[in-house]
Amino acid sequence: MKLNHNYSSLTANYLFTEVAHKVNAYVEKHPEKEIIRLGIGDVTQPLVKCAVEAMQQASQEMGTREGFHGYGPEQGYAFLRQAIQARYAQWNAAVDQTEIFVSDGAKSDLANILGLFDVDNIVLVPDPVYPVYVDDNQMDGRKIVYVHGNRENSFLPMPDPTIQADIIYLCSPNNPTGAAYTKRQLESWVEYARAQDAVILYDAAYESFITQADCPHSIYEIDGAKECAIEICSFSKIAGFTGTRCGYTVVPLCLERQRMRLNPMWRRRQTTKFNGVAYVVQRAAAAVLTQQGLVQIQKNLDYYHNNARVLADVLHRAGIWYCGGENSPYLWMQCPGQMTSWQFFDWLLENCGIVGTPGAGFGACGEGYFRLSAFGNAEQTEIAAQAMQQKLMECFG
Amino acid sequence: MKLNHNYSSLTANYLFTEVAHKVNAYVEKHPEKEIIRLGIGDVTQPLVKCAVEAMQQASQEMGTREGFHGYGPEQGYAFLRQAIQARYAQWNAAVDQTEIFVSDGAKSDLANILGLFDVDNIVLVPDPVYPVYVDDNQMDGRKIVYVHGNRENSFLPMPDPTIQADIIYLCSPNNPTGAAYTKRQLESWVEYARAQDAVILYDAAYESFITQADCPHSIYEIDGAKECAIEICSFSKIAGFTGTRCGYTVVPLCLERQRMRLNPMWRRRQTTKFNGVAYVVQRAAAAVLTQQGLVQIQKNLDYYHNNARVLADVLHRAGIWYCGGENSPYLWMQCPGQMTSWQFFDWLLENCGIVGTPGAGFGACGEGYFRLSAFGNAEQTEIAAQAMQQKLMECFG
Repeated sequence: MKLNHNYSSLTANYLFTEVAHKVNAYVEKHPEKEIIRLGIGDVTQPLVKCAVEAMQQASQEMGTREGFHGYGPEQGYAFLRQAIQARYAQWNAAVDQTEIFVSDGAKSDLANILGLFDVDNIVLVPDPVYPVYVDDNQMDGRKIVYVHGNRENSFLPMPDPTIQADIIYLCSPNNPTGAAYTKRQLESWVEYARAQDAVILYDAAYESFITQADCPHSIYEIDGAKECAIEICSFSKIAGFTGTRCGYTVVPLCLERQRMRLNPMWRRRQTTKFNGVAYVVQRAAAAVLTQQGLVQIQKNLDYYHNNARVLADVLHRAGIWYCGGENSPYLWMQCPGQMTSWQFFDWLLENCGIVGTPGAGFGACGEGYFRLSAFGNAEQTEIAAQAMQQKLMECFG
Repeated sequence: MKLNHNYSSLTANYLFTEVAHKVNAYVEKHPEKEIIRLGIGDVTQPLVKCAVEAMQQASQEMGTREGFHGYGPEQGYAFLRQAIQARYAQWNAAVDQTEIFVSDGAKSDLANILGLFDVDNIVLVPDPVYPVYVDDNQMDGRKIVYVHGNRENSFLPMPDPTIQADIIYLCSPNNPTGAAYTKRQLESWVEYARAQDAVILYDAAYESFITQADCPHSIYEIDGAKECAIEICSFSKIAGFTGTRCGYTVVPLCLERQRMRLNPMWRRRQTTKFNGVAYVVQRAAAAVLTQQGLVQIQKNLDYYHNNARVLADVLHRAGIWYCGGENSPYLWMQCPGQMTSWQFFDWLLENCGIVGTPGAGFGACGEGYFRLSAFGNAEQTEIAAQAMQQKLMECFG
């Protein structure tokens, strides 16, 4: 019996454990002070009305002989794949229904898609980024190389033709930096991937936050992307489905490597290793993509965007460099006074009673930076902004 | 770029495609005849009332600020893990809550658990059996050996100490044969696994159909099983959740190989590659495990059991050898007149208008056998039974 020994070489990411530990210690020492949490990566607004109603209606159906649904198609019901297809059509990205695979979320798909690739591939990961890309590949023992995000490239690293890569992760808008690639920038990535015979895994989980006209919502807005990219998306941030669990992955029919087509491979993977998403959840997901649903979820997106603007204003007035916010619920700020990420964490907690996320937790290039989240409550975000403004001016103004 | 070339060596399982093809051809030729489907592996009874109500209530909560649930614990909410723990306690199988991991179903867990094991392990699979055990391992390139089920061992193959194995699949009650191991038989398997330093993957998806007192519901009813077995179960057959998606896997804290503990490995896997099950679904699963819920689901189990009895009576009266039915929704019959599985498929369709599943589709040892399912409608099952009885007596009586 041999276990997968790659597990023993995994580096434990204590980021959020360490954050919780420090916050608890602070609260114990200062029980009178109120803490405002701007570290959260989860949504806080309730599910929109049409999603709730769809789920209640579908639950009722499930209790009747005529309306009961057993095993559904592993790749998702046609009614939901049609709605997703229509979303792509609106961006002038032609996607066939057989290219869409509904799942329980982007995190699952990002992990499971790697099963289609040999262990002997070089993986290119931007730094800083969502830590599971690295963990997923370390569990399989793949070699990882990094492209560096920094203030000079506005945390939008571009391809280096001298670096060899087989699997390329892109996350736009990025978690944690909030930076979003423009169409021209993505064209360079597609060109690079095709030259390398690589496959891009495009994480579009935050696409619904995009407001800038020249930032694509989908990699398939780029010519030639269907020959080199798999897109993974989720209803978590589109519609607050973090606790409702629905996402989807697009594997183009024309995507082929080593004379094997990836679409039938993924279909075979999903039909063998997955049994589809709950009927009631798929009904809720389809409901948020109706005309009425889109209006309702936009209100929540506007709410978070407004929080982001409030926080951005403070950073702007304090003369602190930042990116994100415009196309993202995250603001990525340079720590003032040349503090490290963790030093600023302590400073912000002690001086303003605010909890944020140290950038160093997202990769080496995150050191000296800090993530603020706009997913909180508006009133609390406003109070936090005022406290930050005052203290930043006092100490670094 | 190298793809996973194990995919190209997968044998396509055309079982259900071929069944559909033959049925369509028959219907086209005989549009006047009514077909009764006893091939189905899916439940047909609607969700029980308390599951529907729990899901509706939870959906409503999700639409309120106070009741909204975002990301939940990846291993499942404590309220559901407590309910599952109580179920085990009732069988005198002590399971800790930290040993229980809630998931979207047994099929996912059966696939994903293999990530903890090296590719270089020998996998022991009973034949006939649920085909995904083989596919999952072929996708990783593991070597597979088989233990043979047959009429002599009542399709309950026992361990052969001369065969080396690292990973052992057991499915009891078995799909497709409906045969269930007794406590004594499982003790032999546990003894064998411990001697081999192997890990048993115990698929208990059909445990709720067990009626025989000496057939365990859980492998953990066997002394020493926690040191050598992972148990995978599902609400699909317990409570008709095939379209609602909830299951769970138990990885004992004391299960250790090569000085690595499998419980923290699985926790690491799930927290990295999975984001938990929908809150509304977990509420429904917990509801069916309440006192009231258990009464409601028992009515559905009784309904299917009654179908199984009706079919078993026919086989008994016709003097046809079969197993299953007593602890399972499946009956596994020997084809009469020395027909092959597919010959009997044609015979049954043409003579009785009944669709069943050829045993050969579940492995080489299934040749000459046939699976009938009790998951159908009671009236239809009764009509099918009468037709079968008449024709079997006429032709083979």
